[in-house]
Amino acid sequence: MSERETSMPPSASEPAMPVPIGVLVASDRASAGLYVDRGGPAIEEWLGRALVTPFRSVYRLVPDDRAAIAAALADLADRERCTLILTTGGTGPAPRDVTPEATRDVIARELAGFGEAMRQASLREVPTAILSRQLAGTRGRSLIINLPGKPASIATCLAAVFPAVPYCLDLIGGDRLETDPAFCAACRPGA
Amino acid sequence: MSERETSMPPSASEPAMPVPIGVLVASDRASAGLYVDRGGPAIEEWLGRALVTPFRSVYRLVPDDRAAIAAALADLADRERCTLILTTGGTGPAPRDVTPEATRDVIARELAGFGEAMRQASLREVPTAILSRQLAGTRGRSLIINLPGKPASIATCLAAVFPAVPYCLDLIGGDRLETDPAFCAACRPGA
Amino acid sequence: MSERETSMPPSASEPAMPVPIGVLVASDRASAGLYVDRGGPAIEEWLGRALVTPFRSVYRLVPDDRAAIAAALADLADRERCTLILTTGGTGPAPRDVTPEATRDVIARELAGFGEAMRQASLREVPTAILSRQLAGTRGRSLIINLPGKPASIATCLAAVFPAVPYCLDLIGGDRLETDPAFCAACRPGA
Repeated sequence: MSERETSMPPSASEPAMPVPIGVLVASDRASAGLYVDRGGPAIEEWLGRALVTPFRSVYRLVPDDRAAIAAALADLADRERCTLILTTGGTGPAPRDVTPEATRDVIARELAGFGEAMRQASLREVPTAILSRQLAGTRGRSLIINLPGKPASIATCLAAVFPAVPYCLDLIGGDRLETDPAFCAACRPGA
Repeated sequence: MSERETSMPPSASEPAMPVPIGVLVASDRASAGLYVDRGGPAIEEWLGRALVTPFRSVYRLVPDDRAAIAAALADLADRERCTLILTTGGTGPAPRDVTPEATRDVIARELAGFGEAMRQASLREVPTAILSRQLAGTRGRSLIINLPGKPASIATCLAAVFPAVPYCLDLIGGDRLETDPAFCAACRPGA
Repeated sequence: MSERETSMPPSASEPAMPVPIGVLVASDRASAGLYVDRGGPAIEEWLGRALVTPFRSVYRLVPDDRAAIAAALADLADRERCTLILTTGGTGPAPRDVTPEATRDVIARELAGFGEAMRQASLREVPTAILSRQLAGTRGRSLIINLPGKPASIATCLAAVFPAVPYCLDLIGGDRLETDPAFCAACRPGA
């Protein structure tokens, strides 16, 4: 600890390193340049409104390939040290939708409540929400959450589960995240 | 394509082949002739009200035997080309209830939202709905959905999930189904 | 059957043996004596209010160790003949939380509706409910249900699922339980 750090608040003297947050876009068309992905920017915009903690997005754009998605997720968690990783795309029932399979390949434990809560929130808006196979789980100190591909659905799902994300990261030893309670009220029981 | 098909709507000139829909009844007593199954007819009646698309039911009546149910489901999907298969019976916690196990044996991917939505809808009517292990999943171009055994519960479950079924079949390359919106409003996002 | 049993109601002449109910507390700190567990007593108090059937609790206090929890659950089911076993603690996402894994090790079939209903009920109270990995399942004639660690959350979860427990035990050949309908209305469809 330097003297400056004790005499002045770190936020004024030297800003904290922004927290890395993984954003993985799974899309054949976007990764081939045939389509401009809108899911990734929608996630980043939502995080920008929700988080008070400085963060930087670590993007990955990969085709709908199970091994490629799994490798990118593991890299974001293990090498890039992203303790929060959000995916967009590839969660439906179509043959090319393999994001949930790839996610299950790299997580150690699944948190079933995330998928349930996201489907339930989406179901209030559209009956086809039950077709989503979105899941979430942990890999070491990282929490991986599957989100849908459409920006409006991404916002619905993040609003449904994000209040529990900071506490989840606390429990698994991830980065500390603070939210803007006016936009997303994080809950830390007992805090 | 014949000339007649282009000059006149197919429905008037030569009616489309009715879509085959699998209906599997799992019941020791019904398959032994000790009991008249009411689940199968309840499914068929519900479909008759919901579907505008002509269909024909392909029935299978099997005992509560995991291998027999799995074989019948695979046959309905692969040989009978039923892209929608509905089962009734055998989803509870009793030792002879093995329909979910048999279904999991033949599907490639599970759609967790179906089971969740059916239990949630049933739970509004009876607290024992949580005992149901109903699930749904896809096998190639076929969607298999477990329904309960009681006619009233069948209607509750079908009402909860059927609006998403036609779009699901679109996504996996199954038959195109049109519903009567006055009875069951199918949702095709973006259509 | 003795003559006394036919001439007088068993409850007056010789009271029925109390039904054994397993209560497993998973906690490193409680099992090391560093902390007085409050989950076990909360379960017992709730059961005392809900059940009319005489019962006795069979306690097990074990550390957050997967093998130890699994062994204790199997012992409660197989040797102690507890047809209902309730656990408390160890269901979160933290590395030491292993109760769901241990439970899955010993059950033959999972009843997904229990976890869904408990999370849904808890979610009305706290957004971090989605972090719970609570599950339930059957092992022979025994039903095992994971509950959270906090007394208030235990009551929420038991209120959500217990109305279906007596009928579930009927279906798997477990002990017959009668509840006080003023506190917890058990549902036995068709009864």
